[in-house]
Amino acid sequence: MKFIIRSVIAGFLFITAASMFSQKAKRVVFFGDSITEAGAKPGGYIIKAGEGLAKKGLAGQYELIGAGIGGNKVYDLYLRMEDDVLAKNPDIVVIWIGVNDVWHKQSYGTGTDADKFEKFYNAIIKKLQAKNIKVILCTPAVIGERTDFSNQLDGDLNKYSQIIRNIAAKNNCDLVDLRKTFLEYNLKNNAENKESGILTADRVHLNEMGNQLVADKMVEALVK
Amino acid sequence: MKFIIRSVIAGFLFITAASMFSQKAKRVVFFGDSITEAGAKPGGYIIKAGEGLAKKGLAGQYELIGAGIGGNKVYDLYLRMEDDVLAKNPDIVVIWIGVNDVWHKQSYGTGTDADKFEKFYNAIIKKLQAKNIKVILCTPAVIGERTDFSNQLDGDLNKYSQIIRNIAAKNNCDLVDLRKTFLEYNLKNNAENKESGILTADRVHLNEMGNQLVADKMVEALVK
Amino acid sequence: MKFIIRSVIAGFLFITAASMFSQKAKRVVFFGDSITEAGAKPGGYIIKAGEGLAKKGLAGQYELIGAGIGGNKVYDLYLRMEDDVLAKNPDIVVIWIGVNDVWHKQSYGTGTDADKFEKFYNAIIKKLQAKNIKVILCTPAVIGERTDFSNQLDGDLNKYSQIIRNIAAKNNCDLVDLRKTFLEYNLKNNAENKESGILTADRVHLNEMGNQLVADKMVEALVK
Amino acid sequence: MKFIIRSVIAGFLFITAASMFSQKAKRVVFFGDSITEAGAKPGGYIIKAGEGLAKKGLAGQYELIGAGIGGNKVYDLYLRMEDDVLAKNPDIVVIWIGVNDVWHKQSYGTGTDADKFEKFYNAIIKKLQAKNIKVILCTPAVIGERTDFSNQLDGDLNKYSQIIRNIAAKNNCDLVDLRKTFLEYNLKNNAENKESGILTADRVHLNEMGNQLVADKMVEALVK
Repeated sequence: MKFIIRSVIAGFLFITAASMFSQKAKRVVFFGDSITEAGAKPGGYIIKAGEGLAKKGLAGQYELIGAGIGGNKVYDLYLRMEDDVLAKNPDIVVIWIGVNDVWHKQSYGTGTDADKFEKFYNAIIKKLQAKNIKVILCTPAVIGERTDFSNQLDGDLNKYSQIIRNIAAKNNCDLVDLRKTFLEYNLKNNAENKESGILTADRVHLNEMGNQLVADKMVEALVK
Repeated sequence: MKFIIRSVIAGFLFITAASMFSQKAKRVVFFGDSITEAGAKPGGYIIKAGEGLAKKGLAGQYELIGAGIGGNKVYDLYLRMEDDVLAKNPDIVVIWIGVNDVWHKQSYGTGTDADKFEKFYNAIIKKLQAKNIKVILCTPAVIGERTDFSNQLDGDLNKYSQIIRNIAAKNNCDLVDLRKTFLEYNLKNNAENKESGILTADRVHLNEMGNQLVADKMVEALVK
Repeated sequence: MKFIIRSVIAGFLFITAASMFSQKAKRVVFFGDSITEAGAKPGGYIIKAGEGLAKKGLAGQYELIGAGIGGNKVYDLYLRMEDDVLAKNPDIVVIWIGVNDVWHKQSYGTGTDADKFEKFYNAIIKKLQAKNIKVILCTPAVIGERTDFSNQLDGDLNKYSQIIRNIAAKNNCDLVDLRKTFLEYNLKNNAENKESGILTADRVHLNEMGNQLVADKMVEALVK
Repeated sequence: MKFIIRSVIAGFLFITAASMFSQKAKRVVFFGDSITEAGAKPGGYIIKAGEGLAKKGLAGQYELIGAGIGGNKVYDLYLRMEDDVLAKNPDIVVIWIGVNDVWHKQSYGTGTDADKFEKFYNAIIKKLQAKNIKVILCTPAVIGERTDFSNQLDGDLNKYSQIIRNIAAKNNCDLVDLRKTFLEYNLKNNAENKESGILTADRVHLNEMGNQLVADKMVEALVK
């Protein structure tokens, strides 16, 4: 079995979990920001998820497509969803967004208000569900890995994660609660309360362990 | 002649410049933020524009519709343009947006990056022009009326106004350059270099003179 | 026993815990922001602390002076400490600052960087300790009373509180850990995870219960 | 004649305009941020001012000392003025501050409110004048060199410059109005309306021409 990786346009990468698909292969688009953009590169969580599916003998049943662009916030996803998601006719869309919506408030003054975050998120789901696409939501993992909630943006990340959990519940969407997953992992593995280096390289973007952990959770969500 | 004002839903107001329309009455939607929301209320610039058209004997030729919602930024317009603009089948759409894109950077950390402002603006125009709707653009007028460019956000307002001027030029759209209009008016009428009270009540929202000045410019743009 | 309250200048209030002081009455200045400014008004925590001391029969042993000014950050305290604290020849200074240093980052873009917060805080302590004044530090209590760390600024508040705890430890200062106190109280009494109304009126400023809780903690710190 | 440059502590550089001083050599401290920190390095405006004085045959009459630290805002100057300025017994202090007070609002959320900027600035001048030190004020030059006031922070820079001009007038201080100087130079030499490259390398920090222009203005102010 081999992976075919075709670079389509800047920032996009198509990863096929097998060179030939049966008619039943489900097309999965991972829709997100720079974390997902990196996820489609070698060692990234999408690649690792493909490997994880292959180990389970499911290589031919899923086609994994990365659609992440650095700096994206929820409204950027909404703007480009026709071209980058719907045009690909996916069966499943995994939405992982929120870090920049919170982070850019502080770094550029251009984050997203909570009420508008929710509004755009719902608008995306509505369009996807209208096409009978299964939608899986993820909470933003971390901006800083400290476990005592002393990372500067923990308050807002917790707030926006709760918004996403509520959206998932209301729309009957599966949830990959990465914020919860990352906190639990750090509580066990980050005794020194470090800002980064456990699951991230730089407080936000995934290191190898982070990519593996996310990949495992994505596989769980896909095959359940 | 009388004006018929029907309140449809909160924040929206339909103003008809005459009780009966000939088939040639052009439907104009004013698409914007709180300034435009107020513009559709008694004394507002849309009402005054209707009066201005009536004085010119053009009452029956235009139907003016307000579609402003407080706090809107360019991406909010994009999100609601199907329901609030396209659903009304307008002949002309006047877009007046930008104050909150700049202002909210400072007040809430949720303004709009310049590159994304341009991207969403272009996406709106593209959708409108695809339906053969004439698009008229406006520059954001003021956040503070001082004439020596010492209003805190003048730099960004000038920058975003220039972005809009460039978009207008590239897309062959008419431009109502309210930023230029307001500066010229203040240079003549604001010798004390006051922050507000000349054309605005509160540095941003229009007072009676401001509404009249904007109405005059809108009429000019419509009938030219 | 009666309380003498003399208003000296706007924002300052001198509260004497008894009308006559023996030579051993310790003069205590509460040095802070709007929370402390309100604390010196009827029903405020400084008044309540005076009452608490009186109940313990210690009315004559402490003179409590409010020196809080709304909007103050750590560097504002440093700027006015000569006039508002040292000039009063206090035996004890209770410093309660930090809410605006965090909050104003988000609301005005004029908060205080963590490293400078620490630098100014240390400079204040150094000047006070050089005059043999006992210094008691307080952590900022809350900006929002939710107990799941989903208040927007919880991350930074936790971070700045930890900075203050470290400063207290390094300088052998007593600590009134109000952030810890408030969280513990809310975990017991805020089952609905409300933003305000438990110990604060508006997420930040103390209601009656909040003033009482702080007063109790201040009395504990003074008499220990 | 030679220049003696002694590095004293990180960020500080002492520049003597001549190897031997007569008793009448005036000691001048340049008190500021990263621009002034760089100004004391080879090619910097303080070095160039020393050269300019030498060309006028005034090398022995001035001792120029750099006291700039990167990232400083007005309150940082206040905090360190005892050690870094008063301890040097200067005859003249040139204060050049303000860029970070404005800039950090946007980049970190830790700028300085206008009223507090004025308060700290006045406190510095008061302490210097109490020691009969002559104080020369400078306005912040630029954050971006565009001449049409479309640099993002032009509004606030103009506002804070006006505050400084008013402080100079009220306290009978000489003023080096670098904001005016830079604008005039750019109006003549920046026909393409570029953001940087005329007097700055990066919109803020001086290139060779910028250092020369500032040096010339400093010499003018010192010898007048």
